[in-house]
Amino acid sequence: MPSRNVIFVGTARTPMDLVDRLASFGTATVHEAMGRSGYLGPRLRPIWAGARVAGNAVTVSVAPGDNLMAHAAVEQTTAGDILVVSPTSPCTDGYFGDVFATSLTQRGVRALVTDTGIRDVAELKELGFPAWSSAVSAQGTVKATPGSVNTPIVIGSVMIRPGDVIVADDDGVACVPRAQAQHVIDQCEIRLRKEVDIKRAFASGALGLDLYGLRELIDELGVEYSQAPPIPG
Amino acid sequence: MPSRNVIFVGTARTPMDLVDRLASFGTATVHEAMGRSGYLGPRLRPIWAGARVAGNAVTVSVAPGDNLMAHAAVEQTTAGDILVVSPTSPCTDGYFGDVFATSLTQRGVRALVTDTGIRDVAELKELGFPAWSSAVSAQGTVKATPGSVNTPIVIGSVMIRPGDVIVADDDGVACVPRAQAQHVIDQCEIRLRKEVDIKRAFASGALGLDLYGLRELIDELGVEYSQAPPIPG
Amino acid sequence: MPSRNVIFVGTARTPMDLVDRLASFGTATVHEAMGRSGYLGPRLRPIWAGARVAGNAVTVSVAPGDNLMAHAAVEQTTAGDILVVSPTSPCTDGYFGDVFATSLTQRGVRALVTDTGIRDVAELKELGFPAWSSAVSAQGTVKATPGSVNTPIVIGSVMIRPGDVIVADDDGVACVPRAQAQHVIDQCEIRLRKEVDIKRAFASGALGLDLYGLRELIDELGVEYSQAPPIPG
Amino acid sequence: MPSRNVIFVGTARTPMDLVDRLASFGTATVHEAMGRSGYLGPRLRPIWAGARVAGNAVTVSVAPGDNLMAHAAVEQTTAGDILVVSPTSPCTDGYFGDVFATSLTQRGVRALVTDTGIRDVAELKELGFPAWSSAVSAQGTVKATPGSVNTPIVIGSVMIRPGDVIVADDDGVACVPRAQAQHVIDQCEIRLRKEVDIKRAFASGALGLDLYGLRELIDELGVEYSQAPPIPG
Amino acid sequence: MPSRNVIFVGTARTPMDLVDRLASFGTATVHEAMGRSGYLGPRLRPIWAGARVAGNAVTVSVAPGDNLMAHAAVEQTTAGDILVVSPTSPCTDGYFGDVFATSLTQRGVRALVTDTGIRDVAELKELGFPAWSSAVSAQGTVKATPGSVNTPIVIGSVMIRPGDVIVADDDGVACVPRAQAQHVIDQCEIRLRKEVDIKRAFASGALGLDLYGLRELIDELGVEYSQAPPIPG
Amino acid sequence: MPSRNVIFVGTARTPMDLVDRLASFGTATVHEAMGRSGYLGPRLRPIWAGARVAGNAVTVSVAPGDNLMAHAAVEQTTAGDILVVSPTSPCTDGYFGDVFATSLTQRGVRALVTDTGIRDVAELKELGFPAWSSAVSAQGTVKATPGSVNTPIVIGSVMIRPGDVIVADDDGVACVPRAQAQHVIDQCEIRLRKEVDIKRAFASGALGLDLYGLRELIDELGVEYSQAPPIPG
Repeated sequence: MPSRNVIFVGTARTPMDLVDRLASFGTATVHEAMGRSGYLGPRLRPIWAGARVAGNAVTVSVAPGDNLMAHAAVEQTTAGDILVVSPTSPCTDGYFGDVFATSLTQRGVRALVTDTGIRDVAELKELGFPAWSSAVSAQGTVKATPGSVNTPIVIGSVMIRPGDVIVADDDGVACVPRAQAQHVIDQCEIRLRKEVDIKRAFASGALGLDLYGLRELIDELGVEYSQAPPIPG
Repeated sequence: MPSRNVIFVGTARTPMDLVDRLASFGTATVHEAMGRSGYLGPRLRPIWAGARVAGNAVTVSVAPGDNLMAHAAVEQTTAGDILVVSPTSPCTDGYFGDVFATSLTQRGVRALVTDTGIRDVAELKELGFPAWSSAVSAQGTVKATPGSVNTPIVIGSVMIRPGDVIVADDDGVACVPRAQAQHVIDQCEIRLRKEVDIKRAFASGALGLDLYGLRELIDELGVEYSQAPPIPG
Repeated sequence: MPSRNVIFVGTARTPMDLVDRLASFGTATVHEAMGRSGYLGPRLRPIWAGARVAGNAVTVSVAPGDNLMAHAAVEQTTAGDILVVSPTSPCTDGYFGDVFATSLTQRGVRALVTDTGIRDVAELKELGFPAWSSAVSAQGTVKATPGSVNTPIVIGSVMIRPGDVIVADDDGVACVPRAQAQHVIDQCEIRLRKEVDIKRAFASGALGLDLYGLRELIDELGVEYSQAPPIPG
Repeated sequence: MPSRNVIFVGTARTPMDLVDRLASFGTATVHEAMGRSGYLGPRLRPIWAGARVAGNAVTVSVAPGDNLMAHAAVEQTTAGDILVVSPTSPCTDGYFGDVFATSLTQRGVRALVTDTGIRDVAELKELGFPAWSSAVSAQGTVKATPGSVNTPIVIGSVMIRPGDVIVADDDGVACVPRAQAQHVIDQCEIRLRKEVDIKRAFASGALGLDLYGLRELIDELGVEYSQAPPIPG
Repeated sequence: MPSRNVIFVGTARTPMDLVDRLASFGTATVHEAMGRSGYLGPRLRPIWAGARVAGNAVTVSVAPGDNLMAHAAVEQTTAGDILVVSPTSPCTDGYFGDVFATSLTQRGVRALVTDTGIRDVAELKELGFPAWSSAVSAQGTVKATPGSVNTPIVIGSVMIRPGDVIVADDDGVACVPRAQAQHVIDQCEIRLRKEVDIKRAFASGALGLDLYGLRELIDELGVEYSQAPPIPG
Repeated sequence: MPSRNVIFVGTARTPMDLVDRLASFGTATVHEAMGRSGYLGPRLRPIWAGARVAGNAVTVSVAPGDNLMAHAAVEQTTAGDILVVSPTSPCTDGYFGDVFATSLTQRGVRALVTDTGIRDVAELKELGFPAWSSAVSAQGTVKATPGSVNTPIVIGSVMIRPGDVIVADDDGVACVPRAQAQHVIDQCEIRLRKEVDIKRAFASGALGLDLYGLRELIDELGVEYSQAPPIPG
């Protein structure tokens, strides 16, 4: 039957050594290593700058203006998790604050990612608890409507399953499917090695046109070089 | 007659001891203590992080792109006030900058809240003058169109009257009607005491499901617990 | 013929002494000195706070999701330039990151201004490389579609030509046409001198109503002063 | 106490002859006659074009994603009313459809105005039931959270009280406070008479510059007439 | 490897008798019958009003500003299909027009659903070809960047797989997973029968409060009935 | 000096035979014929569907919330013109209504294009006066702030000069520089002839993949064809 409300327990997780390795690469590198996929989009922003974390997704589907299921989700978390929350319709309300973060911290949850609002951002920053959200809002929520925990949810255009690896930093949030964690790590390492070489070449004065072999492409595409016409003044 | 342009003088204010007490609670707590009302919405953001203030509202209704009436409003301010500005139609222009803030500071005005743009944000941050706005914009304004001072205005979905208490921090801005100031303080204190207990319980490993008595509700709502199905990978 | 794709080389630039003088005034003052024009609008925000720079525009027109032409543009830059990028249709993708910034830094380019997304913002902040953009996004781009370098482009409602002076700070970005650089400097200096006087008067308790001669205007416009009606409470 | 949830019964209404007279003027004229106030803003659009109605406001404050209180409100309606709905935080869900409209129609309610989404728009158009909303959405809502009926609500920046007159057409929605209904009618009639004269003058070739006496103003403001410079081509 | 670009051929489809049955219910009923899921959100709007269709999804993932893969997708369509298009990052460009629709029509494709812009809307309306999009835009696209056909895509927060049933009308678009088609039809029929009864009751003067048994709930939630206070005027 | 306010008189115009020829092609074709340039973007929408017009631009730069200069512009119009209006900062107010349209109609002005709001849309539709705007709003404006007529303005990312040809239909608005009018007509005709051939081929069952020679490109880009994996259900 469609859309039964359910709380899945005993979900699989990605091993923490893979999770921690993914954290070290950051959002953009992981997204590139996945063939430019897995990025949750520019709407999700950190509530304070400077954090870079990864963790196993515990997913929550909540009703607009209602954080009931987030409380049910806490019981399903363990150390190294990240709580990931999606509302069933667009909502900017402040679902989470420093009281809720106390509970998450106690359980070893590393961060909160939510396509809703967050509040108590000054307190969360002081606590050093990292969070990514699509809004900051003091607007409170109720606890009245059912939802689901650890079912697949969508944020941006990315489907997130419980146990997928969430990677988040100042560029936003990416999701690495559990089955691809090792492969993505391998691709990240290849990419990083290339980047070191490219940066060194750039620092020595090389041009992207040459390093990436773009001169021929630009020519084939019909782009012409021309002396700039004089502009009055 | 509707919409006569007027500058009201001699408006009542909330006593400063109540104002300062409200500042200490912050926006989210005040909003909750008012039965989840009074929040001006997520569009208003601080131009720099870390301030928490409260003050008596001096309200200004301005035309789009025109800051004439803000100058008229300054004369009506006194120490402990906050200038609160709403345009008659949506406008992101930079109505206020560091020159204007010099005048506000001299009069003891504590902050500026405006549903328009602000500019000179680097200078205002350096001065430590707190401001909340719906945009940052260098776009200048004219002084040509009439408006009103100390009439009721609306920001977000909240009506603000002169002498109401404006509370603002990193979560945004709330408005406490003057007649409710003492009552809201009482409610805030009740709420804060509860929060201390809940945080302590959370820190000891208690769950929101139990503290808030949500297990029964979740069950009644038909949410089922189920063993997670295996996900390939 | 319309819309030939071209890379103009040998474009004129504004002398660096004028460029540096303009940087010192900042975005809002330059915009005012130009008769309230030249501001690129509130959509462009700094990726980190506190920078204030100016430089000669090297302009790039790119396809959505495609940073090919940005690489072609680097070759046309020299010390003291700012790369200014506009997509042919709205796009939030992360066209630029720290690798690209390495190349810009090596050439002496002072900043990046782009009406697209940027990524690696933590790294760029650490490098101290200033950038203004309309989004932060980890989303990668391809290199497949032609465009132009050093043709006039539009951001906000402002046309930017190569060699125009770009001024950027926490208020956003302004563009000074090359032919007007000296004139705008003169106007900025006049304005700044006035501001010093006004700030001094404000600090001494003078009112904008009197300094700007607004009392008569407010009266002519029919605004009335009136004793505030009592508000219940 | 703030924000008690309440359903007010026995609210006063504006006499229907005044209501009907206001309908005849339409939204823009009523807004102008009120000194350019009372307009609920461009976010509210008709779900089908061509209707023009007025009615007595029955106001509803609903939680996001929850239409419980709208059902409570129906009992408070009578012939000639318009149901006016505001969510406590932004929500695009489809609160109302053709089933609900059947109930409103039976009671003689003339229209629905909601700062949420609406659905079944094809059916509502076929029924000829007029509605204004800030979204069209098939997304369903629950019935779980309390709210209020016939308390003051805010849409756009306008406070609406029960018994105020709602005027709506293809330009959007305006609210006339009950106490001002007759006065606004008088002002509308004055305005309409003027408009007839102005249209006649325009049709005969007169210019707004002369009819409104703007030539002097333009001159005083320093606008200069000048022969157009030749543009190449 | 993640994100390989692929065109899947020989995808399964939902039988046309189920597809046609789903069309008859419309978007909102189908969404409700699925437990309030499957709706692609209010961003997708019909380019002309009055169509109601259903068809088998042929999915396309395109790069921003690039319609190359849409042409590859046409070859994979057959009579009774609907082409469903999602860009890898937000894009409003006009990917499709009347020329493309000629090709779709020839193949028996029933409609186009795209989270991008569409153009030639006057011509498409005249042709009677139904389309839903997130923008109308004349902006043209290129054919240069790879993508995929018949892989799962996401629009709104809904994952669409090839062969799922797309249902679209003036309320927007819903997606019924292939495996649930018959079940959703059954639920729709149950719902429609209930709606007939409710409409009949409403038409006879019954109230939702009674039909849905909401009086007790409102009372339990603490909502109070009270005589309206007099409002001045 | 920058930004002097001026009304240019005696501006050149594009010959009406070229203007009328451009109208016949419509917005999308003209935009394509210009190398995918000149389109004012998806924000500008017709206030009623079905019009297709072209005319010589008379440009107006107005302050936000202020339509003074539009009246000055009317005097500069003649038969076959289109009034094109841009505010100096974003504004949705209803600058124009049926009274103003009476004046435009009397002078032979063919349409109104404005990056602001419009009102009286029901009346304008009845009059058959075509208009494109970025909003519909009843909000009135004042006449107090100077601006310019027949200076270059920007809408979307397109610079519009007086005497340029404005082409508008249900897809939005395009601007053809006066000097390119004949060339663009030639390109449109070439394009239309091609489109006739392509439509005929499509109607006979040809595929875009073959007509546009895309099979090789898709192969080169590494897109693979693959048998669809079975999806459960």
